[in-house]
Amino acid sequence: MIGIGKTAFGAFPDRDIRSLAVEAIGNALADANVPPELIEAFYLGNFAGPSFVGQNHLAPYIGIAAGLSPGIPCTRIENACASSGSAFFHAWQSVAAGIYDAALVGGVEKMTSQPTPKVTEILAGAGDMSGEGAAGATFPALFAMIARRHMYQYGTTREHLAAVAVKNHANGAKNPLAHMRKVVTFEQVLAGKSIAEPLTLYDCSLVSDGAAALVLVPLDRAPEFTGRFVQVLGIAQTSDSVALDQKEDITTFRAVRTAGEKAYAMASLGPRDIEVAELHDCFTIAEIVASEDLDFVAKGDGGPFAAAGCTAIHGKIPINASGGLKSKGHPVGATGAGQICDVVMQLRGDAGERQVTRHRTGLAQNLGGSGATCVVTILGVR
Amino acid sequence: MIGIGKTAFGAFPDRDIRSLAVEAIGNALADANVPPELIEAFYLGNFAGPSFVGQNHLAPYIGIAAGLSPGIPCTRIENACASSGSAFFHAWQSVAAGIYDAALVGGVEKMTSQPTPKVTEILAGAGDMSGEGAAGATFPALFAMIARRHMYQYGTTREHLAAVAVKNHANGAKNPLAHMRKVVTFEQVLAGKSIAEPLTLYDCSLVSDGAAALVLVPLDRAPEFTGRFVQVLGIAQTSDSVALDQKEDITTFRAVRTAGEKAYAMASLGPRDIEVAELHDCFTIAEIVASEDLDFVAKGDGGPFAAAGCTAIHGKIPINASGGLKSKGHPVGATGAGQICDVVMQLRGDAGERQVTRHRTGLAQNLGGSGATCVVTILGVR
Repeated sequence: MIGIGKTAFGAFPDRDIRSLAVEAIGNALADANVPPELIEAFYLGNFAGPSFVGQNHLAPYIGIAAGLSPGIPCTRIENACASSGSAFFHAWQSVAAGIYDAALVGGVEKMTSQPTPKVTEILAGAGDMSGEGAAGATFPALFAMIARRHMYQYGTTREHLAAVAVKNHANGAKNPLAHMRKVVTFEQVLAGKSIAEPLTLYDCSLVSDGAAALVLVPLDRAPEFTGRFVQVLGIAQTSDSVALDQKEDITTFRAVRTAGEKAYAMASLGPRDIEVAELHDCFTIAEIVASEDLDFVAKGDGGPFAAAGCTAIHGKIPINASGGLKSKGHPVGATGAGQICDVVMQLRGDAGERQVTRHRTGLAQNLGGSGATCVVTILGVR
Repeated sequence: MIGIGKTAFGAFPDRDIRSLAVEAIGNALADANVPPELIEAFYLGNFAGPSFVGQNHLAPYIGIAAGLSPGIPCTRIENACASSGSAFFHAWQSVAAGIYDAALVGGVEKMTSQPTPKVTEILAGAGDMSGEGAAGATFPALFAMIARRHMYQYGTTREHLAAVAVKNHANGAKNPLAHMRKVVTFEQVLAGKSIAEPLTLYDCSLVSDGAAALVLVPLDRAPEFTGRFVQVLGIAQTSDSVALDQKEDITTFRAVRTAGEKAYAMASLGPRDIEVAELHDCFTIAEIVASEDLDFVAKGDGGPFAAAGCTAIHGKIPINASGGLKSKGHPVGATGAGQICDVVMQLRGDAGERQVTRHRTGLAQNLGGSGATCVVTILGVR
């Protein structure tokens, strides 16, 4: 990875989806010092542009406007909330296999132009509409079920969930590109409006607009462009059933466990080697479950681990130093690429106030739906 | 390619999108004699499942139901009407690069559950909604403009367009999986209801439900599975501006010309070597333009070429012996994969009543929007 670019995440009523994506791409190309004509393939992650803004066929729509050459393949990848993690996976695969000398990854979503009930309905399309959707089970409801079961099975408490929210808001307040730069107290979270019991408003990630982009070249060519490149050490994309009721145990995501195992094996690293991580906290419980599924902590201990401060910026393993989806924002199609940008910033030592202490090896975990797609990416600098 | 599978294309009110895709995948795996557990990656082409049936995140939703292993990457590719051509391109790329030993391509769309005005609106999302869409320019209107300009510039006539419709209906009548197995006369086409002048009802492809699938393995391993494998000789995916008004000349598609040139070069073949072709006839004029852009005939001569019978099943270069999108049907996300299945059937000599005479080398051309994405695939048997 030789360049990264992000827009701010937030509500931007005056911006259209294309201008957001083109801005992030421009930033990434400038950061990489690569002219758009050098890019040989473009992979765009987007979850629901057609539903949110009525525009489909987004890869050439955005790619050509960003100045890419017309002759190259521009492809939209959709894998729910893991869309741009998946776009990154496929771009990496092509470059690592020697097919392209330079590939561009983008991720974008423009969500805030729709009213909240419509947003909730569109998001539900990442779950099983014939079962969950038909029964009125929106995503907050699905993750509330996961939280309740986790509480029952492992003794996780309402306070453990709140600790994740407080931490991620504190981190996001230090991130100039975050949607909600607002510190919240433990008491505020506990007193928050109930969304789907036990989850309150502060347990849920934000509905945001935003974009992120990255430039990839083969490892042996990276030094030609920059001395600040970051290497993909391990990566895996996995799948599982979309419907929650098809899973044996809803307190763990098989797709996450498998992706983690594969990525660790490829990198010849283990969870103790990871110094900074961006995990997919679409809900506070999701961060807890992911921290367990990726073996940062034993199964069931994720809640106490977070509450003890072990996942804070200067904790044992800093998780979501960026503020996470919770406070940074969750423009669905941009989230996976954005997480990788955030890890790259940490590895480069560019994370400012939220910079972690040790930063040679990082991990990003991007989840689609309630665990039907997962992309885990392990990054390093030498 | 060691296996192909298709559903019938048509209007199936009692079938959901998943059951159609799973049927096509089951047929392809059975044809390849490959158990689903052997598949290492799944690429699904789908244009607008969320808009047509409210279901997003379709790759794991379908892949897991089809019996694929949960650990593998399942990815939805969206490139408008070229979605499954693009899915095929990316699957081929991964297998050819040695990443996977067996990949599955699927394509599916379920369109007929929506009323026609809604279908037209969803399809318009493949064009530029901020310009064309805002101006009320639906796809029939865009291709009518292309037809008018082609008539003005090259003397193409209403009768030339009709000849394409008559041929494709005659071919589709011989295809048991076609949506509309109905011979139409020249007079019927000319007297057809006007849709967007000069295009009549019979110049427009059909709104259909359907699915198609293919199994790919590395060339050196194909003989282990079947003696009837078909080889990818050349392939390219290209892009161009989505908006028609951004193109220099609307009587030719740069994305098609470039994809054709690249695929011919990769195959070390020229247009004279192609013995059977499936071209993207979303409208009759699109087949004429594609036959020129792929150099089967000189620019401007596509109309007279078709009217003279040169593109009939036993003509100089048989085009859309399957019936094409016109009569076979156009379930958008299934079309590209379906075209490749149709060429494979011809190369294997399995095309029954519509079998062409020479059938060692074939070509499939899949178009997205009004020329913003194109995938050209050249196939051969040894």
